[in-house]
Amino acid sequence: MASVKVFGSPTSTEVARVLACLFEKDVDFQLIRIDSFKGMARKPDYLRLQPAGQALTFEHGSKTLVESREICRYIAEKFADQGNKDLLGKGTLERASIEQWLQTEMQSFDPPTSALVFNLAFAPILELEPDQEVITKSKAKLANLLDVYEQRLEETNYLAGDKFTLADLSHLPNTHYLIADMRCGHLFRSKKRVSNWWDKMSERPSWKKVLELQQQPPPVL
Amino acid sequence: MASVKVFGSPTSTEVARVLACLFEKDVDFQLIRIDSFKGMARKPDYLRLQPAGQALTFEHGSKTLVESREICRYIAEKFADQGNKDLLGKGTLERASIEQWLQTEMQSFDPPTSALVFNLAFAPILELEPDQEVITKSKAKLANLLDVYEQRLEETNYLAGDKFTLADLSHLPNTHYLIADMRCGHLFRSKKRVSNWWDKMSERPSWKKVLELQQQPPPVL
Repeated sequence: MASVKVFGSPTSTEVARVLACLFEKDVDFQLIRIDSFKGMARKPDYLRLQPAGQALTFEHGSKTLVESREICRYIAEKFADQGNKDLLGKGTLERASIEQWLQTEMQSFDPPTSALVFNLAFAPILELEPDQEVITKSKAKLANLLDVYEQRLEETNYLAGDKFTLADLSHLPNTHYLIADMRCGHLFRSKKRVSNWWDKMSERPSWKKVLELQQQPPPVL
Repeated sequence: MASVKVFGSPTSTEVARVLACLFEKDVDFQLIRIDSFKGMARKPDYLRLQPAGQALTFEHGSKTLVESREICRYIAEKFADQGNKDLLGKGTLERASIEQWLQTEMQSFDPPTSALVFNLAFAPILELEPDQEVITKSKAKLANLLDVYEQRLEETNYLAGDKFTLADLSHLPNTHYLIADMRCGHLFRSKKRVSNWWDKMSERPSWKKVLELQQQPPPVL
């Protein structure tokens, strides 16, 4: 079997999404991190030059992908017979529901939450001024969307049904940064079902492993 | 100028030696770390498959090297006009003295200290039984050698003369692990000159930067 390689930093939300999927599917892989130094100063990740200019590159044999959700679909399909077999559902109907919520995540959840992650978590590190107007608008959009999620989660345990799928997994990286932030954590925590949904998802060993990679130094040797 | 690439983990003593030299010489470079995962388990570094099977690979344009001291000499010569210009001395006599102490480090200091680093610092992490006979013999060899160092450092500030050179730098990675260890730190600390020598060397910004890379998680983004 051709080896799977992921180029990127686990603290990137895009990379974290792919790592969570690889751990769910019990896939063997190599994680390749590239740090650029200008003399003694380390350049921030967003200036990193990956082979194709992205902060995330995925390789499996001769296949190369750079979009995290596309990579997750590819992994779930290519390694269908191992690890968590529910990630993309087991039939056409399940798959359709998962795809619908994957689209919702990408089109409606990701834009405001990525803007919030950037302005609340990353801007201070980069010594950039957070854009208050973007923050306010993004919080409003997110609050409205989470009302829809709350309703949905009154019907089912997870977004696409009663099992944890790629649709839920895809929400992990951004939610992780925002739910711990005093300025928007309450948007999630004020909704009982959404809050429970997060608690269940974030307890998964796959996600805990991603957090470990984000926080720990590399092993000794 | 062709870019400099280092493949390896900064916690490896071989890699740390090269990083300290790159920082001393103010060289721009990329550090590429590769972590292999078997499902959710991370394989220890010594099982990592680098392109050529080593835990350390250095590339500069079409030049590839894998031995840390050879890499340090190469960096000091290739980037002679920048950063610390004393690393390999400024004339034939200075260079000869530096080479003599580099040989001492490689042939006499490295064998017992690498054995001690492995048995005291790494074996517990790998859940291997430390070899007590190797530890005892290595400590005796090291104690004798450090008597020679103590005498030398009564004559000069650093091993090869009054300036910090590659001969001193080469001692940093192993000494760092051992001097903090209760079981052999006293071998260094009981000798006044050796102890001062360590304190001066380990305060260098280049070495502090290496320690930062060993201990810190990768930057956010």
